[in-house]
Amino acid sequence: MYDLLLTNVRPMGRSETNLLVRNGRIAGFGPAPVDPTLPVVAGEGRIVLPALVEAHTHLDKSLLGLPWHRNQVGPRLIDKIENERFVRRNLPIDPGQQSMRQALLAVSHGTTHIRSHVDIDTEVGLGGVEGVLATRNALAGIVGIDLVAFPQSGLLIRPGTLALMEDALRRGVETVGGLDPCAIDRDPKGHLDTIFALADRFSGNVDIHLHEPGEMGVFSMELIIERTRALGMAGRVMISHAFCLGMPDPTVVDPLIAALAEAGVAVCTMATLSRPVPAVKRLMQAGVTVCAGSDGIRDTWGPYGNADMLERAMFVGLRNNLRQDDDLEIALATCTTEGAKALGLPDYGLEPGCAANLLLVAAETLAEAVAQRPSPRLVVRCGRVVADGGQVRWGGPS
Amino acid sequence: MYDLLLTNVRPMGRSETNLLVRNGRIAGFGPAPVDPTLPVVAGEGRIVLPALVEAHTHLDKSLLGLPWHRNQVGPRLIDKIENERFVRRNLPIDPGQQSMRQALLAVSHGTTHIRSHVDIDTEVGLGGVEGVLATRNALAGIVGIDLVAFPQSGLLIRPGTLALMEDALRRGVETVGGLDPCAIDRDPKGHLDTIFALADRFSGNVDIHLHEPGEMGVFSMELIIERTRALGMAGRVMISHAFCLGMPDPTVVDPLIAALAEAGVAVCTMATLSRPVPAVKRLMQAGVTVCAGSDGIRDTWGPYGNADMLERAMFVGLRNNLRQDDDLEIALATCTTEGAKALGLPDYGLEPGCAANLLLVAAETLAEAVAQRPSPRLVVRCGRVVADGGQVRWGGPS
Repeated sequence: MYDLLLTNVRPMGRSETNLLVRNGRIAGFGPAPVDPTLPVVAGEGRIVLPALVEAHTHLDKSLLGLPWHRNQVGPRLIDKIENERFVRRNLPIDPGQQSMRQALLAVSHGTTHIRSHVDIDTEVGLGGVEGVLATRNALAGIVGIDLVAFPQSGLLIRPGTLALMEDALRRGVETVGGLDPCAIDRDPKGHLDTIFALADRFSGNVDIHLHEPGEMGVFSMELIIERTRALGMAGRVMISHAFCLGMPDPTVVDPLIAALAEAGVAVCTMATLSRPVPAVKRLMQAGVTVCAGSDGIRDTWGPYGNADMLERAMFVGLRNNLRQDDDLEIALATCTTEGAKALGLPDYGLEPGCAANLLLVAAETLAEAVAQRPSPRLVVRCGRVVADGGQVRWGGPS
Repeated sequence: MYDLLLTNVRPMGRSETNLLVRNGRIAGFGPAPVDPTLPVVAGEGRIVLPALVEAHTHLDKSLLGLPWHRNQVGPRLIDKIENERFVRRNLPIDPGQQSMRQALLAVSHGTTHIRSHVDIDTEVGLGGVEGVLATRNALAGIVGIDLVAFPQSGLLIRPGTLALMEDALRRGVETVGGLDPCAIDRDPKGHLDTIFALADRFSGNVDIHLHEPGEMGVFSMELIIERTRALGMAGRVMISHAFCLGMPDPTVVDPLIAALAEAGVAVCTMATLSRPVPAVKRLMQAGVTVCAGSDGIRDTWGPYGNADMLERAMFVGLRNNLRQDDDLEIALATCTTEGAKALGLPDYGLEPGCAANLLLVAAETLAEAVAQRPSPRLVVRCGRVVADGGQVRWGGPS
């Protein structure tokens, strides 16, 4: 935990001030104290934001740093799942090394908290979980990493997976993952009862990949909401992707949004460009917490992605046709405050007392920061500069 | 016109060779000649591509380099049109200066040819055209600029506009623009007859903004195809946006695509994230030329855009769900060869004899170049380095 003085920064794009950090927390704003021992960063008029939150990625299976993988994957979801297991058999991927690479890249862009789904299946076992846990420990000084035990290849259709997920939860994984209860596991009641029972037993969270389109997705979402209510899990359940909320029929979607808000179920969007997506502003206005994620970064699913959550905010803006400055701030919120709320991060923000996890970026306004994603960035974690100009500093004490 | 030797470059990502330029044109590949007077660029294994083609932008009205414009524009197309004219009255925008700024930014990213629509209306008159023509002349040594006389505020509904468009064509503008013949001008036959007659008289091209959705857009597109056929204008007509081609009903869309191919009408997509868009791969497979554009860059319509056509190729890929390496090359083609074909650029490509307009980018494969948009870039125009590492060199003789 560190002390730091940031001079001439503009909190959330407002007028210039100084930001004092004491013992890793924001102590206050205003006149700079006279203290020659205090490390100083010259803000030079840059905007200071609370650091970015990556609410949905897959640290264990990025191909970053490996020779280019020629992608020939088929069009269906199941093609991508099968292809991934096949490629892994032939192209050893070290989840420890790969998660380290992606986490460092994320920090370089300004992210200091990541929720990572980690594949668990009867082939990879807990290899992914062990690798990402090792990265979490190694990088504890610069980035927080939450893990989701994710049955990517199915849960009920792949016997043995449930026991592995229990093991993962015993080792410190905090969230139970799920995946398309109808489309993949073919048993929505069975899949969701199993997942929620596990979360209940371990006092964990739930985070479910829901790619299911249209009325099928709506049905699964209703089942998720029912279980969240029944178990009193408001604030601990997230639905990722939630493509069915992109349906054009408001008579179906509007009551569903209201139910999500009432049950305290959050939604995580990737602003996927080629699929219907939840309408971010509409959901937020209805009281649903809406965060954002990169999804996979340069993996066997596709070659895209750079782990920059300011770029993801731009995608959220473009995908949702947000053009007004006020609306771009909504897009930014999905990658900052809403992410923190959805992941239950304590002490997040720019208020005195909050953890000093900060991003400095040269932009005139928040809208410019989103639309133009300026570099270089300066990133602070608990009062220490952990990245500057794309270079991550993590050799120091943590 | 210049000589140049590029050593150790990989044409289109293939194996390393040397590329010799003589008198501004590609002379050949292979062993480097012994000629100490030859300027040399060390390729260092980078990919060499034909330079990028920006097929649709609005150079006259970017706000680049101006104080941040707080956007409060309404949701409808007509809101954006009216808002723009309103803002312009209160925020003088110099089309010469603004087009210069955007063109230089485009070159820095690797674009050496731009088609720019330029607003013509009874308020701005030919001010935009004059400004962009001045930029075209000033930058002739580093970038080619085509102009479209664009009746942004309507043609028939705004008397006086037609005479201004005629003036623009007399001053060297080569393409006649149009805009939503039903939705804006309220007279599809009148609008299109006027535009095509003008193009016929001046032996010009036609490029029509068609935002009209669904069946209305289909109807307008049919009228455009009919006139293209009747006047023998195959290869000289483009439809920009063409959102109606994003309709989900193949019984409507498939015959329309076939008719576009047969009539020789090209389509320009921006891969707009928040609207239905043409399915790029399907159109190309049917024989339609499909190019891509940035549309407006940081203007009163919205704050997005950076004039990087490699990033636009990524948008095309993501929006069309292109994941296989071969498919990412299709996305790249919209910003290279297809753009050149649509704009009728002579001598475009990497064949001996082609103009030496080139982009060097450090990537393992073409797919990586699209998905990751690496920087820095090195840009060659007619055998001379015109941009390197984001810095444009245009002070030299042209």
